Amino acid sequence: MHETFMRRAISLAERGRGHTAPNPLVGAVLVRDGKIIGEGFHAFYGGLHAERAALEDCFQRGLSPAGASLYVTLEPCCHTGKQPPCTEAILAADIRAVFVGSSDPNPLVAGKGIAALRQGGIAVTEHVSESACDALNAPFFHHIRTGLPFVLLKYAMTLDGKTACASGASRWITGEAAREEVHRTRAAVGAVMVGINTVLQDDPLLTCRIPGGRNPLRVVCDSGLRTPLDSALVKTAAEVPTLLACCVSDTARHEAYLAAGCEVLTFPGRRVDLRALLTSLGARGINEVLVEGGAELGWALLSAGLVQRVQAYIAPKLFGGKNAPSALGGTGVPYPIDAFALKNMHIRSFGADVRIEGDL
Amino acid sequence: MHETFMRRAISLAERGRGHTAPNPLVGAVLVRDGKIIGEGFHAFYGGLHAERAALEDCFQRGLSPAGASLYVTLEPCCHTGKQPPCTEAILAADIRAVFVGSSDPNPLVAGKGIAALRQGGIAVTEHVSESACDALNAPFFHHIRTGLPFVLLKYAMTLDGKTACASGASRWITGEAAREEVHRTRAAVGAVMVGINTVLQDDPLLTCRIPGGRNPLRVVCDSGLRTPLDSALVKTAAEVPTLLACCVSDTARHEAYLAAGCEVLTFPGRRVDLRALLTSLGARGINEVLVEGGAELGWALLSAGLVQRVQAYIAPKLFGGKNAPSALGGTGVPYPIDAFALKNMHIRSFGADVRIEGDL
Repeated sequence: MHETFMRRAISLAERGRGHTAPNPLVGAVLVRDGKIIGEGFHAFYGGLHAERAALEDCFQRGLSPAGASLYVTLEPCCHTGKQPPCTEAILAADIRAVFVGSSDPNPLVAGKGIAALRQGGIAVTEHVSESACDALNAPFFHHIRTGLPFVLLKYAMTLDGKTACASGASRWITGEAAREEVHRTRAAVGAVMVGINTVLQDDPLLTCRIPGGRNPLRVVCDSGLRTPLDSALVKTAAEVPTLLACCVSDTARHEAYLAAGCEVLTFPGRRVDLRALLTSLGARGINEVLVEGGAELGWALLSAGLVQRVQAYIAPKLFGGKNAPSALGGTGVPYPIDAFALKNMHIRSFGADVRIEGDL
Repeated sequence: MHETFMRRAISLAERGRGHTAPNPLVGAVLVRDGKIIGEGFHAFYGGLHAERAALEDCFQRGLSPAGASLYVTLEPCCHTGKQPPCTEAILAADIRAVFVGSSDPNPLVAGKGIAALRQGGIAVTEHVSESACDALNAPFFHHIRTGLPFVLLKYAMTLDGKTACASGASRWITGEAAREEVHRTRAAVGAVMVGINTVLQDDPLLTCRIPGGRNPLRVVCDSGLRTPLDSALVKTAAEVPTLLACCVSDTARHEAYLAAGCEVLTFPGRRVDLRALLTSLGARGINEVLVEGGAELGWALLSAGLVQRVQAYIAPKLFGGKNAPSALGGTGVPYPIDAFALKNMHIRSFGADVRIEGDL
């Protein structure tokens, strides 16, 4: 029963994906006599919180929330941000019981929302479908805890583990359905990132080509500032936010990029410090970064402990080729026992392709 | 209804796997009034055919097959081989109706068994659960049609597509359950094959380590006859059949191998002609070969059109490494559009590992 309503709240929360950062995804359902009388979700950053959206929906239906139960995926806030505290609205609506999924990830405020509700005489049940609610906001939680964005490393490969032919050609490995899913993922993250070799090799656009989809910030890890001025990224930088992370302090070399609409971020040393770059992205409210290649950037992030999730799209085909590249480069681990282990494996089909996903 | 009984016949047929070659797997079920009154399968080469085994079982139960229906996965034979014709036994038992899955794959005899039954007054229904029955005997059908064994290419890789670390170390990539399944597969095939590099790198034993499991013939594709005399394969060649395929015609170099119990097969030229080697294996009744590495042998077989099925075991781990090997070597295809396409994809989990299987 409780799980059914919380599952509904979770699926409502999902509708905000891509639009709430740096806020979390939250869904809420109002129930009386086993029936849903109002529901809502946090739809975009700055908009109504889920609890208030559910109350609003209840009023719109001409119903009263008095005496109802509220199911909410995340502990209601008790502080004033872009919106007034949700605890106040819940108390004012005369809700009888509140069922909470995830706790507030910020240790400084965790429990305070729940305490405020209990103080107001509301029966609060915590940890309802907690792991599903937590999974909804893995990037948000990671960002709150570490200040870094959650890094999702994605690649497409053949069943023999190649990400391109020996010639370097890689379009296309997967089919329509898998590529469309990647576009949906782009719409859900704050930034996509690629290494300079991927720009030079593939000249990608990295936009979200789903109708109505939002374009994430495009980030190139380009220590030597070698991104071609006539690349698809630079040519579209006036319309789509584009950030070049480099180690070139000679600002004269930045000018043409700035003129094209790119942002240029300079780091000390000879290679971009990936942790510093991610810290800077986290500081501007980006809580999830999709890394789309290449093999060297992927390995650099992985070996620095900066990757949280891996998505491998696997196509039902074989390229062969001793010199055809695979998903991760660098030195690699010396022995199988040193491998980076993945957990929480999920398998899903997209057309003829299969996606295997795991967390580090 | 018909499918239920045929499914039972198929699962009976499976019990013979690994023991019937060069004969097919066959299962049979006798049904009267919706109840199974006898069942059987072809258990080993030279043993009772499934139809006779089912009749035998019926008699053992003290029942009469008269008037019953027979479900059999493959068209009953009408010629005398190691066993007398099954059609005679079916007619003698006064069976009323026969339901057949696969047709006899030998075009010269196909339909003759069915004709003999019909001539005897039995109602015969063909093509019952035909694709499932055909799948049961894909190797047998391939062997009958082409004279070549069905080649199953198997490898284990990480989710980043590596079959070993950059150091060459590859033990272990997959876990217990996946490795046990490979041992089950070894017990089901007529031969396992590896390239010389795999012998030099891994010194594999290639036996079936499942209690009661049968060891397949072990074949090394070793053009230069470089298999070490102190390798696990040569050291155990007195107990487990071992074939070295080479291009070394100097028989003096064969002697130590022969003395150790190996068989040495010599081919002309500088590299073993894989088609000739497979033809020779097919001629000795081997209808399925499991290829267990390495990348060069795999590519050579694939690019020669000699591979029918691929099994990739994928472990939830990442090795990284620009120089870490992946599953298929050689030159590879020049462009994605030239890829070898796989169909009939099957995904199955073994412990934490995933196996993706597809046919060429």
